[in-house]
Formats: sequence, structure tokens, C-alpha cells
Amino acid sequence: MSNTDGIHRIGILTGGGDCPGLNAVIRAVTKTAINRHGLEVWGIEDGFLGLIRNRMHRLAGEDVSNILTQGGTILGTSNKANPARFATAVDGEGNPIFEDVTPRVLEHVAERHLDAIVCIGGDGTMTCAADLARRGVRCVGVPKTIDNDLMHTEITFGFQTAVTTATEALDRIHTTASSHHRVMVVEIMGRNAGWLALHSGVAAGADVILIPEIPFELDAVCEVCRERSRRGKAFTILVVSEGAKPKGGQQVVERVIKTSPDPIRLGGIAPVLCRRIEDETGLESRATILGHVQRGGTPVPVDRVLGTMFGHKALDLLLNGRHNELVVMQQAKLTSVPLESVAGKQRLVPADHPLLEAARAVGTSFGD
Amino acid sequence: MSNTDGIHRIGILTGGGDCPGLNAVIRAVTKTAINRHGLEVWGIEDGFLGLIRNRMHRLAGEDVSNILTQGGTILGTSNKANPARFATAVDGEGNPIFEDVTPRVLEHVAERHLDAIVCIGGDGTMTCAADLARRGVRCVGVPKTIDNDLMHTEITFGFQTAVTTATEALDRIHTTASSHHRVMVVEIMGRNAGWLALHSGVAAGADVILIPEIPFELDAVCEVCRERSRRGKAFTILVVSEGAKPKGGQQVVERVIKTSPDPIRLGGIAPVLCRRIEDETGLESRATILGHVQRGGTPVPVDRVLGTMFGHKALDLLLNGRHNELVVMQQAKLTSVPLESVAGKQRLVPADHPLLEAARAVGTSFGD
Amino acid sequence: MSNTDGIHRIGILTGGGDCPGLNAVIRAVTKTAINRHGLEVWGIEDGFLGLIRNRMHRLAGEDVSNILTQGGTILGTSNKANPARFATAVDGEGNPIFEDVTPRVLEHVAERHLDAIVCIGGDGTMTCAADLARRGVRCVGVPKTIDNDLMHTEITFGFQTAVTTATEALDRIHTTASSHHRVMVVEIMGRNAGWLALHSGVAAGADVILIPEIPFELDAVCEVCRERSRRGKAFTILVVSEGAKPKGGQQVVERVIKTSPDPIRLGGIAPVLCRRIEDETGLESRATILGHVQRGGTPVPVDRVLGTMFGHKALDLLLNGRHNELVVMQQAKLTSVPLESVAGKQRLVPADHPLLEAARAVGTSFGD
Amino acid sequence: MSNTDGIHRIGILTGGGDCPGLNAVIRAVTKTAINRHGLEVWGIEDGFLGLIRNRMHRLAGEDVSNILTQGGTILGTSNKANPARFATAVDGEGNPIFEDVTPRVLEHVAERHLDAIVCIGGDGTMTCAADLARRGVRCVGVPKTIDNDLMHTEITFGFQTAVTTATEALDRIHTTASSHHRVMVVEIMGRNAGWLALHSGVAAGADVILIPEIPFELDAVCEVCRERSRRGKAFTILVVSEGAKPKGGQQVVERVIKTSPDPIRLGGIAPVLCRRIEDETGLESRATILGHVQRGGTPVPVDRVLGTMFGHKALDLLLNGRHNELVVMQQAKLTSVPLESVAGKQRLVPADHPLLEAARAVGTSFGD
Repeated sequence: MSNTDGIHRIGILTGGGDCPGLNAVIRAVTKTAINRHGLEVWGIEDGFLGLIRNRMHRLAGEDVSNILTQGGTILGTSNKANPARFATAVDGEGNPIFEDVTPRVLEHVAERHLDAIVCIGGDGTMTCAADLARRGVRCVGVPKTIDNDLMHTEITFGFQTAVTTATEALDRIHTTASSHHRVMVVEIMGRNAGWLALHSGVAAGADVILIPEIPFELDAVCEVCRERSRRGKAFTILVVSEGAKPKGGQQVVERVIKTSPDPIRLGGIAPVLCRRIEDETGLESRATILGHVQRGGTPVPVDRVLGTMFGHKALDLLLNGRHNELVVMQQAKLTSVPLESVAGKQRLVPADHPLLEAARAVGTSFGD
Repeated sequence: MSNTDGIHRIGILTGGGDCPGLNAVIRAVTKTAINRHGLEVWGIEDGFLGLIRNRMHRLAGEDVSNILTQGGTILGTSNKANPARFATAVDGEGNPIFEDVTPRVLEHVAERHLDAIVCIGGDGTMTCAADLARRGVRCVGVPKTIDNDLMHTEITFGFQTAVTTATEALDRIHTTASSHHRVMVVEIMGRNAGWLALHSGVAAGADVILIPEIPFELDAVCEVCRERSRRGKAFTILVVSEGAKPKGGQQVVERVIKTSPDPIRLGGIAPVLCRRIEDETGLESRATILGHVQRGGTPVPVDRVLGTMFGHKALDLLLNGRHNELVVMQQAKLTSVPLESVAGKQRLVPADHPLLEAARAVGTSFGD
Repeated sequence: MSNTDGIHRIGILTGGGDCPGLNAVIRAVTKTAINRHGLEVWGIEDGFLGLIRNRMHRLAGEDVSNILTQGGTILGTSNKANPARFATAVDGEGNPIFEDVTPRVLEHVAERHLDAIVCIGGDGTMTCAADLARRGVRCVGVPKTIDNDLMHTEITFGFQTAVTTATEALDRIHTTASSHHRVMVVEIMGRNAGWLALHSGVAAGADVILIPEIPFELDAVCEVCRERSRRGKAFTILVVSEGAKPKGGQQVVERVIKTSPDPIRLGGIAPVLCRRIEDETGLESRATILGHVQRGGTPVPVDRVLGTMFGHKALDLLLNGRHNELVVMQQAKLTSVPLESVAGKQRLVPADHPLLEAARAVGTSFGD
Repeated sequence: MSNTDGIHRIGILTGGGDCPGLNAVIRAVTKTAINRHGLEVWGIEDGFLGLIRNRMHRLAGEDVSNILTQGGTILGTSNKANPARFATAVDGEGNPIFEDVTPRVLEHVAERHLDAIVCIGGDGTMTCAADLARRGVRCVGVPKTIDNDLMHTEITFGFQTAVTTATEALDRIHTTASSHHRVMVVEIMGRNAGWLALHSGVAAGADVILIPEIPFELDAVCEVCRERSRRGKAFTILVVSEGAKPKGGQQVVERVIKTSPDPIRLGGIAPVLCRRIEDETGLESRATILGHVQRGGTPVPVDRVLGTMFGHKALDLLLNGRHNELVVMQQAKLTSVPLESVAGKQRLVPADHPLLEAARAVGTSFGD
């Protein structure tokens, strides 16, 4: 057993939205901690909620056997459990009253004798972890983002599984589009960053890809559909990030909204775009919102491998006194950055990204 | 070369919505007709539209090589090309003016010297084919339905691919549901028949399955979610056919509509149901509409086999003087019924179907 | 709770080779027995070995949650545990000494108060079950066969998963074959029956399919490869059942053996055939033996549905006094036959099977 | 249209073994060359063989539509067509007589007015390309290797598809292994480098991974199986690269060979290892050789993206006067190295690779 820098018992939690590969991280951390370093590992339930409510249980090696292929997280997760601003009650009008319950969290950490915590999550989780770190809890972060938009890391687990799910759906839709001579508008996850739409769109040979980083012109999009129709290619595959925006922003959005139900209540931009394209071009169009299928399922092999490596690296940092850091991949190498350095930032698709260029070169339009 | 009953040149067309396995039928008919019987095969483009517009081309064996694994149809299809009632113009208010263009079709059939036509399609296509047959064109039908709701045939190609696509999506959603402790409402194709929701729901171990044949009570559905939550299973997978209806029909629909946007404009019942369940139970809920992905993609092996067998049988009928019949599978054997016998009917899930019983026995609720 | 015909506690076991869908049966039987009928269910470990060694454990509903998508069997299985002839010792030369340990089994059944046993397995398992039945133990059988060769049932779970695995492998190999202009010989499971090779071969559009039921001529096989090469199709996909035999049997096998290592020690007929074809035709050839991948993995949806229905039916038989019967599918309906009626028999591909005919019609050679 | 540096017509060829993603490269190069730069593109058939035999055809944009999802190469390939040493005749004893046919190649290049050639291939193809380059033909290389063992590039297309195919097979085998309590030995491609076995082994949670870079001890391997059996885990998944070697090399190999048929004639190390483990440990063992399925099939999305980017970069180099270079990925960025710098070298798994460490930490044995 190695020197563990005074660490004997660690906690591990997963926060935020679902992401394939979480269990690979949990498995790597748990197995390595127990078998190699003789530590005790406690699974904290439902992200920071488990720390707030003091719900956690000891993990044995056996508990993480056979979870490598499972989507989701065996620890559960929660989306809105920020100890610094936790809804503990409701006022007379039904609005939540927020409270800083960090003292309660610190109490539970002390009571359970957790010497350190591995926090797996996104932007929000890392903000909470950095808070805890400032109060003296040794934390280490593992980045999780289906959108691949976390700062400072080129890639993390989950992204390629989501790309695969989206691409397989686009492949299916392709055959229907070409048989029916239709414009197919497919909405892909990505509120601020278009990585998922870009990668799956290129992989599926989409004709148009609309991403938040490149505001689009509806006229340009319609012209692609018309031009393809004129050239005898009587179908168009259009991939759109949920956060894609028309040029000029609000104004054009208004026009969009006028001829259609409210896009927010509709649950997506795809049906609105679809209606507009059909109105403008006269071409039969259909919309699909891929939705939650993109977040789940058996992780593809590369995400199991990445999850394993990120988990291993997290423990490595912890046992080498490198607390309050986040594991990241930079220039294809695992390294780390301070936990707080990712808070409130997003890694967007840069205008000169080589994949954008390659996509444009093969004829993909970005509607600009 | 065999005796071909005076048939030397056949046409083949695919009508209606997309369905995996269409190309397997086209391949089987074309290869068998050419190699075994020395016939000429003409591919009619975009279903009956190709007959109306006289657009067709000769198929060589080479043209159907490597199409067995492709979704869609190499011949194209159309949804609304009924020769007996074809929109040929528009009136002053923009409404279509319909005309019987069957004489035009008969002319094109004669001009192209088509001795017979293989029509692959659903209810609507078979109605058109029966019309043609009455006017003296030798037709034979191959049933196509993603919903598996065509009368007189237990199964046809495409259904198992759709079940597989839907089940894989449910499998993905399952892991997210359990990690997030959510109610996941997933809408599956099926306006009148619940076969697809039933099979994929059972295959994915859904907790609730709502199908058109069994009107549901919202209270019963909510109670399942609450009861699971009480028993510590903090998630529920709910599969709903697009045509599922609440008990008492319109009245309860009104209630549903009152608290939500119009379900038709929303494009589905799932978001409405989701909202209602969340309101009633306080459990976090999410909706997904699978949509067009269910109709496309590489056919699963059983659908390639079924397509091949149905295509082979169609030609067999044609060359044995059994015109104006539809290939069907009954008691696990290929046989045929008159073309017109399927028009306007639907094969629904009977109340005593053994799969319903088996599903109820393992604890699945049908909301009744 | 229903009348259970004096049955309060049942055992369940899985015997023989692996087969996707076993867990679906276990789940259906266990959930139905507990929730619907208030029975106790005991999981017998490793097939009849668990009855011999008295190893079994009580199953709760919880134990069968989340197993629907898992290949294999949570109960374990064994291939060679026939109570009537069980190897209990070894003689001086290392050969096993067999003993009838049925009395021991009956003792354990009595001791554990098992009122009935659900036996899931193939030919061998049913023989053991029929033996037990004759000694007064109430048994009911659920057929399991990856090869689809059990008498009296048209289909059972596992087969379509194996077909899918084999077809996906053939699809992969197809692209390599055509890029490299090679003859690809792929060996598929099936010692006595060619169902698996036939279905996957047709689904993948194989050029040649060799099955045990149709002895082949090497010359005919080589001629297909040569003829394709002459026609400019510079590749051939050849699917061969492990039990395929040349015409004239042993004699031609000898010739095969003479120019190659012993096929049995080689682990397959494919490498031998491959060598022979390359020698005869001068065309570059490669062999692949798919092997055990065909038996494992997540069951495809239809196999989960079939497993659920077969399990439900088994319990139904048991609780209605229909002991010592085997669930079967006949003419697309679930029914049952006496347990002993399947022993020692095999359902082979009949010479006039419509799929054989359809395959021949599209140009597939069976080497005859 | 851009300045194309005096290049008006380019050739493109694919050499060596099959690899998913080749068509993505061909599509990217062809579409970009035609649409963006107004070049003419000629497809050279079957790798360097097409240059030797003067077989090539003009490619239109249409020819590369719908090939993104196809495995293999639409141009065909060949394994043994080195112009510098080409078998042009056979001597009296049937041995090939080699000749330098480069002059013939140069003639064909001139005759066809090819201003430059994009060569997609591995080590061997790049050696031929470098030869041509030295004779004055402008060449640019795109690396292709299923094994991921080409020098100077961290990754290229095809590898992740192969990892996925291998991992899916291992996932299937896993369930059978655990149900049957068996040792499953699975042979994965990789003669000199273990990348494929390492990545798929880690992704599938293999218990033992044997790679060429780490000579193994049979005793250590057997001990893992025994130890797992003692701990109640009655199965072991063992992944072995085809090029894995026992410590001490030949001597131990002899021992292996003595008790089994010749491993080379057997087609693999897996059956030999399997036999040895069964003999030593008494645990039931089974071998599977995955074989050619690893090279084919629809490329996974990341390989379609990589193929597109590598193809785009190749053309970019060509049109910017950077001839005789090879596109490579270094530190997650596309760049290039001289063509000849990869000849005869291999990128092996270094002893301190972080994935090796992470795998060891979770308990994987490398048999050393």
C-alpha cells in the first residue's frame, strides 16, 4: 500500500445531468483507492444533496463490478443542490427561500471522517466543489459534460457516446429523407456550444449545421434547400443545436415566433425552423428533437477508457497533495487546472476550428 | 426460364411512409424476376406518382446489389398520390381541386407495356392497387406497415426494426431516469394500434404502457408513479403511443389541454402527459418524442429476411395467375388474401392478447 | 392472489449453453410468481448441478430488476450435469465414473420444499427434467436453443440475437471482401441444423450458404467464386455452418483433411474450406470463425419479448395442473407439448422451406 | 476558385489492409478538390496496382455521395503492389520474379496528366509513395492503420471503429463467461503493437490483457485465473494481441507448441493459450479469434470525422506546396511530417503509458 498523504477515507459524488461514462470514473476511483491504496470509499448519494442530507454509503470493490457498461450513475445525481444557495423552504407565494447550508455539509464531512472528496460534474458542480475547497475540504474534480463545452479540457467522457447516438439517429433519418424527398430538421443538444451538432452533423454528412456560435440567416438556410432541390437532390438534412440563433437575434426570432407557437413551450427550435422552411420553400419538411436519448445508454468504448483514465488521474492528484484541482485533457495529455478556473466559462467552437473548415470544404452550410 | 403466364415485363412501386426492408423486397422481386424468370423489371418512381407522371426506369440486377442493408427505398415514395383523387389544381382560395387521373395511369401502363405491377405499401397503397386491378391491371400487393396494424397479416417487415430503434432509445433513457429519479414519458409511433409501444415497452421493461386500444385514467398513471416513488424506486418509465387516449375521451382531453398547449400543435401527447403527471405528483418528469428515427435505418436481419420472403412470394403469386392478391403471414406461413380485403381496416391489439397478459403479470400498468 | 393448485414454492434453473433471453424468462417467472400469485421462488444455481449439490437461494422481485437487457443467466448454468449419469469420481486411468444421483436430487427438492421446478434449457435439460418428472417432481420446461433446432417449436428466444450478431459480423466482412476482392469464408454455429447460417446468410446477402442439411460439392462452391470473378464481382461471401458436410461425406472430408490440418483440432471447417477454395480457384481467401460471440450479449427486443412470454406461459401451465409439459410456439401461438417429446430429436431445415427457395431465387448457392 | 499551385488534376489511391473511414477521406478529398478548387479527381483502382496497370477513372462529386457510412474503399485496394519490387513473372519452381516497374508507373502518371497523388495507406504505402516522390511525383500521404501503430501520429481513422467492434464482442463474451464460469481467451488484431487489445480490453473491463510490448509469463496468467476462482469470481476474460509473446520468447513458445498444434497454422495464439490455461488450472476455457470483423463495417462517428479532417488537410498540404508530407495528429492538432519518416517504424505502447497505469490500478493483469 502506498503513502496516501494522510488520506484514509474518501467520498465520491456525481452532480448535474446524466452522462455516459460516470460509472467508469466511479469504478476506477473506487477500485484503485481500495485495492491499490487501501483507502475506504464512500458513495455520496445524488450529488451535493447527499452531502446536505448526510446520505452516503460505503462502497466495496464488488459494488463497482459490472458497471463499466452501464449508462447513468450508480450514485444518483441531482441538478439543483448547491449548498451555498439551497432551497430549504417556500414563501407564502410558493417561491423557494434559499439558504446557505454549507455549515451542514461541513458537519457531515467531519462526522463521516471524509478526508477528501472526488467531485464528478460540470460547471455547477465545480463551483460547489471550489466553495467547499475554500472552507478546507480537500476536493478534486473530474469534468463531465455531454456538450464538451467545459473550459480547459479538449475532451472528456460522454461526448463521443452522445455524438454516436445523434449520428445513428441522423443516419436513420437520412434514408427516410431521401426516399420522401423531404427537408429533415433534427435538433441536437447544445445550448451554448455547438460541438455535438458539429461532430454528429459532419459524421452524418449533414447538408446544413446550425450552431450557437454562428448565427444563421433563414434565407441562406432556405436557399440551400432550394438549391439542392434544383440540382435534383430532393432532400436536405439540417442539424440544429438547441441554442442556435438567427442573425440579428431577437428581431428575426420574433418573426419566427409570429408564425408558430412559442418555441420555448414547443420544447425546441426545430419545429419552428421546420415550419418556416416549409413556408418559404414549399418543400415538405419534418422536425425531430432527439432529446434525452443523447444523455443515456451504454458508453462507447472511448468513453469507458476516458472515464477510467480521468478517474485514475483524479485519485493520483489527491494522493499527491494536488487538491482543489480539476483533471483535464490538454494537447492529448492528462493534466490539471485549479477547480475554480472553469466556473462560469464555456469552451465554444472557435471560428477557425479545422473541423468547421473541413465541413465547409465538403459543402456543408452553416447558414451564414 | 419458367413459364411466366404471359408476363414479360413488370413494374414495381413503393407507396406511403418509410419502412425498413422495402429495399429487400425490391431486390428479391427484381433479382428473381430477371435471373430466374427472364422478365424485365421497371422501377416506378415515387409510388403511384410515378404511374401518374409516367416516371419509371428499367432495373438491372446490378441496381439492386448492395441495397439489402439500406433503409428507405431506392424507388422513392409518396404519401398522397391516389390516382382516383389526385390534386391537379388549386381553387381561388388555395384549396386543392381533385381529379380522377386513373385513365392517365392506365395509358402509361399500356404505353410502357407493363404486364403486371408489384405494389409495396400499406392500407392506402392497397386501395389504389385494388382500384387499378378493377380496371384490368394485374397487381399483387406486399404489405408494409411500421405499426404492424395491417389486417390479415401477423407480421411484416419493418416492424422489428422500429421496435429495435424504440427499445434502444428506451434503454438509453432508462439509465438517465434511474440516475435522476425522474418520470420519463416517451412517445412511440402508433395512431390507432399500440403494437409498437407494446412490444418496445415490454422489451425495455417499461413501468407503464399506454396504447390506443386501452383508454387510460390519468389518476391510475399518476398512482403508479407515486407508488413506485413510495417503494423507493424513484423513477418511472412510461411509454405512450401517439394515439393513446384517456378514458371518457374528449372530456379528459379537455382537462389535459387546459393546463397545456394544444397537443396537436405540440406534435405529441407526451409533453402534455408529462406536464400533467408532474403537476399531479410533484415528481420531476421529462418527455421525449421519438419521431421519424423509428421509420428509418438499416433493417434488422429479421426484416431483411421477411422482405426477401414477401418479395419472393409476391412474384410467385403473379406468375401463378394469383393476381390482385396481397401476400400475408398467417399462423407463421406465407399465404395471400384479396387486395381489397385490407382497405380501411386495422389490426388492433386485442384485449386478450397474450403479450398484454404477460406484461400485466410482470407488473406493467396499462393505466386502466 | 390466485389459486395456485397447491403450489407455494417453486424452483427455477437454467441448463446448457448460453443464450440471450434467459434472464427475461427468469424475470417473468419470478415477478409473476411473487407479485401475482404470492409464491416463493428459489433460484437453483448452475442448472442441475445446483439440485445435485443443493445450492439455491431465494429470489426477491428486486433480484430480477434490471436483468432484462443482460445476456447470460443470473442463475449460472452447466453443460454436463445430468443427475442420471453424473461423474462422481475418476478411475485409475483418469476416466470419470458415472453414478445416478437422482435420489440426492429428490432429497434436496423435498428438503427445500420445492413444489415445482421451471427448467429452462435445451434437449439435454429437458431429458433431465422428464426424468425428474417421472420420479414425481412437478416440472415445466421452457425451450432454449441458439440454433433454433428444438422439435415442436417454431421459434424461441435467443435465435434472433444470434442471427443479429452473425449478420452484423457478415455486414462488416462484406466491405472488406469487396475492397480486397477476396473470398471470405465465415463459420456460423449450427452442428446439426443450419437455421442460423441460413437466416444470417440471407439477411447479409451471402453468395454461398452451406448448411448441414444440404451436403455440398466443393467444385460447385469453387465454381460460384470463379463465376463471380468472371462477371467482374471480384469477391464472394461464403457462410458455412460448423456442421456443414461435403457430399459423399467422409470420403471427400478425407480429401479436405489431406491438404490441411485436422478440422476438429483447427476448431472449424472454415479454415479448411478456405484453403481448399484458394488452392482450387487461385482467388485470395480468408476464414473467420465467429465462435462464442454468437451466444452472448444483450438480447434483441424480440428475444426479450419472447423470453417474457415463454416464462409467463410456463408459470401458467404449472398453476393450471399442466405439469411435465414444455412451452412451445406453434403456428405463431404459444402452446405446450409433453416434456419428453423433444428428447433426442432435432428440427432441421426442410428441403422445401420457403426461405431456401427465396434464397435460391435471388441467386444464393447452397453448393449442391 | 483558389490558386492551386499549378495543380489541376489529382489522383487518389488507397493501399494496404481494410480500415473503416477510407471512404470518408476519399469523399473529403474529392468534394473539396472539385467544389472548392475546381480540380479534376481521378480514382486509382486497387492501390499502386492501379498505377502499375494504368487503371483509374474520373470521380464526380456524385460518386462520393452516400459513402461516408460505408466501410471498405470504393477505390479497391491491394496488399502487395510495390512498384519497386513487383512480381511480374514466375520462375520454373513457381517462385515469383520481382521487377522494378516504377518507370511504368511514371509513364502512366504522365500519360494521365496527374499533377499530384493523394496516397492513403500504412507503412508500406508510404514507402512506395516516398519512392515516387523521389522520382518527382508530387505525393501527399494520409495515414491508415487499424492498429494505431504508425509513427508520428497519435491517432488516425479506423482505430476507434476496430476498438468498438472488439469491445462489443468482449461485452457479448462477458455474459457467457460469467454464466458458464469459464476462462474466455479472445484474440485481437495487433502483430507488433497492443493498442487495440489495450483499449478494447480496458473498455470491456478485461481481467488480463496480453500485448506484444509486455512479454507475459504463463504462470502469472494462470495465477490470475486461479485467484479469481478462489475469490468466487468463477470466470476470467483474457484479451490477447495476436503478436503477444511469452517471456523468454522462443523457449516458452516451444513448450506452448509442444502440447498443441502449430499456432501459426491454427491461425492464432488464443487457442494455444486457452489449451495451456485449461491444462494448468483445470478451469474450463474457450478461445475466440475475432479476425477480419475488426477491419470492416460502418465507421463510428469519430472515424468519419477524423477521415474528413485528414482528407481535408491532405489537400491543403498539396495546394500549399507541402508535397511529400504525411498528415499526422500531434498533441491533438493536425500537422505533417515527411513521408519517409514513418517507413519501417512502429509506434508501440510505451511502458509508462497512462492507460497501462490506469488499467493496472483497477486490477488488470498484463501477465508480467
